[in-house]
Amino acid sequence: MRIVTLAGGIGGARFLRGLQAAAPEAEITVIGNTGDDISLFGLRVCPDLDTVMYTLGGGINEDQGWGRLDESFTVKEELLAYGVGPGWFGLGDRDFATHIVRTQMLAAGYPLSAVTEALCDRWKPGVRLIPMTDDQVETHVVVDDPDQGRRAIHFQEWWVRLRASIPAQSIAAVGAEESKPAPGVVEAIEAADVVIFPPSNPVVSIGTILAVPGIRAAVATKTVVGVSPIIGDAPVRGMADACLTAIGVETSAQAVGELYGPGLIDGWLVDDADAAVRVDGVEVRSRPLLMSDPEATAAIAQAALDLALELKELDK
Amino acid sequence: MRIVTLAGGIGGARFLRGLQAAAPEAEITVIGNTGDDISLFGLRVCPDLDTVMYTLGGGINEDQGWGRLDESFTVKEELLAYGVGPGWFGLGDRDFATHIVRTQMLAAGYPLSAVTEALCDRWKPGVRLIPMTDDQVETHVVVDDPDQGRRAIHFQEWWVRLRASIPAQSIAAVGAEESKPAPGVVEAIEAADVVIFPPSNPVVSIGTILAVPGIRAAVATKTVVGVSPIIGDAPVRGMADACLTAIGVETSAQAVGELYGPGLIDGWLVDDADAAVRVDGVEVRSRPLLMSDPEATAAIAQAALDLALELKELDK
Repeated sequence: MRIVTLAGGIGGARFLRGLQAAAPEAEITVIGNTGDDISLFGLRVCPDLDTVMYTLGGGINEDQGWGRLDESFTVKEELLAYGVGPGWFGLGDRDFATHIVRTQMLAAGYPLSAVTEALCDRWKPGVRLIPMTDDQVETHVVVDDPDQGRRAIHFQEWWVRLRASIPAQSIAAVGAEESKPAPGVVEAIEAADVVIFPPSNPVVSIGTILAVPGIRAAVATKTVVGVSPIIGDAPVRGMADACLTAIGVETSAQAVGELYGPGLIDGWLVDDADAAVRVDGVEVRSRPLLMSDPEATAAIAQAALDLALELKELDK
Repeated sequence: MRIVTLAGGIGGARFLRGLQAAAPEAEITVIGNTGDDISLFGLRVCPDLDTVMYTLGGGINEDQGWGRLDESFTVKEELLAYGVGPGWFGLGDRDFATHIVRTQMLAAGYPLSAVTEALCDRWKPGVRLIPMTDDQVETHVVVDDPDQGRRAIHFQEWWVRLRASIPAQSIAAVGAEESKPAPGVVEAIEAADVVIFPPSNPVVSIGTILAVPGIRAAVATKTVVGVSPIIGDAPVRGMADACLTAIGVETSAQAVGELYGPGLIDGWLVDDADAAVRVDGVEVRSRPLLMSDPEATAAIAQAALDLALELKELDK
């Protein structure tokens, strides 16, 4: 069985681990969000790709959900001693090595997809991890800065430095329109039995991946099941509500189900708290959606997969 | 009083600390060797400049003479886990930060001299440290490789990886002929009261600096005193003998004094073991030259400075 998923960072990575447990024989391709990527200290940092790679490869800091296990911060402290920031982005020493290897390979002319494959040679995540694009797409957030007025800032500055404390007036995936899917992305979707959207951020993770021309259209031809990132009126984790508000969408399983809509998804898995959700043209199922431990997560992934296979069968 | 010194790495840096103790009021300009510089992991590493900066700035690992105090090697271990070497060059985590800052500034268009000044803003070495050139000059060593035949390798590969265990057939400062002294180098020499050569490697440190067009000529107009890096028939430290052999010069205070010669130096300070040394046209003095502790080193520097001032006075 071939499964394609689109994934952001922490939530997506944890769901994927559940999916691997639920379908150990499946060939899973993960199309990773690169809109959060940022250049820091002259090094290229891909937070979502790395979170997936470290999580599935056994190198993640489980408690915080990102960054490396048993991490130290010597390089960062030394950079700050030189007056070189930003200090708000937590790059650890182990993590630095990943960015150094990536930057060196990019400088040598390898596309990000080839670099990601090389990094995965070490981590062996058990999935094929492909960045959504080899082109540069950067998520920018327009904010009304109390000091500097209205301006666009990098997503990470809003998300990590400001912790989304200033409302986003709008969110844009800069460069997305001119970008192309990375080699293998569209082919993997076309070859997939089913496509699953983990409970990743529907705006800045799944939404950004779908903004790469060609990906949405390829996904729309498949049987697709989404797992709601919203339980009740709050995100399962992260600050998805701040992103949804920016694009004028309510923070609810109902509204996100409608945002994806019947043109894109066939099934929508929501929490029991949202059992009343109905989306025209989409099969909605409810069950507990809290990824509280690996077993619970595997059961959620299994339910998403079962729903997808059921809908695919109906479609024949 | 204005003193200019040309300096390589460990020996030069330790001598400079002695010179600062001997002449605390002097304005000291250090023209640093950059022929040993190397790009590793996409980062620009300047071993000699950093050794001077760390030593005079209080950040050096005193026991080994290079690298940072209280150092860890997490980044390097992680790079090796990715299969990315070389493993033979010991870059520590604290040291990595220096190279990251340098590489980022170079990429932004700053010349190495400006980068070095910025790094020294943190370290406050108490001297003005200027790289010999902002151009790329790389010391290459021609060796007869048992496996690959005669070939030129980077100085660091010969020095650090092979520990000079294969004889150097020749040594060349590639790019030196086309290089220009960094801004301030010739001006500092012209403004100097005296020039002192620390007991740095006469071939790959002092020799490389003198190979930058304009530096030798400027130095030759000044009162210059050299401190012998050879005591008896062995280098004080390092493997200067392997470099001297490569250029056909005997490993002795006599031969190095003649290598510099009366066209360049006015005084030559040798160890008491070499009291018999005579170099035509050069005033030779002997005293203990082992830099065994800070006090002994300061006394050596004081002797070199006294000799230089005495010769300068005679010259009037």
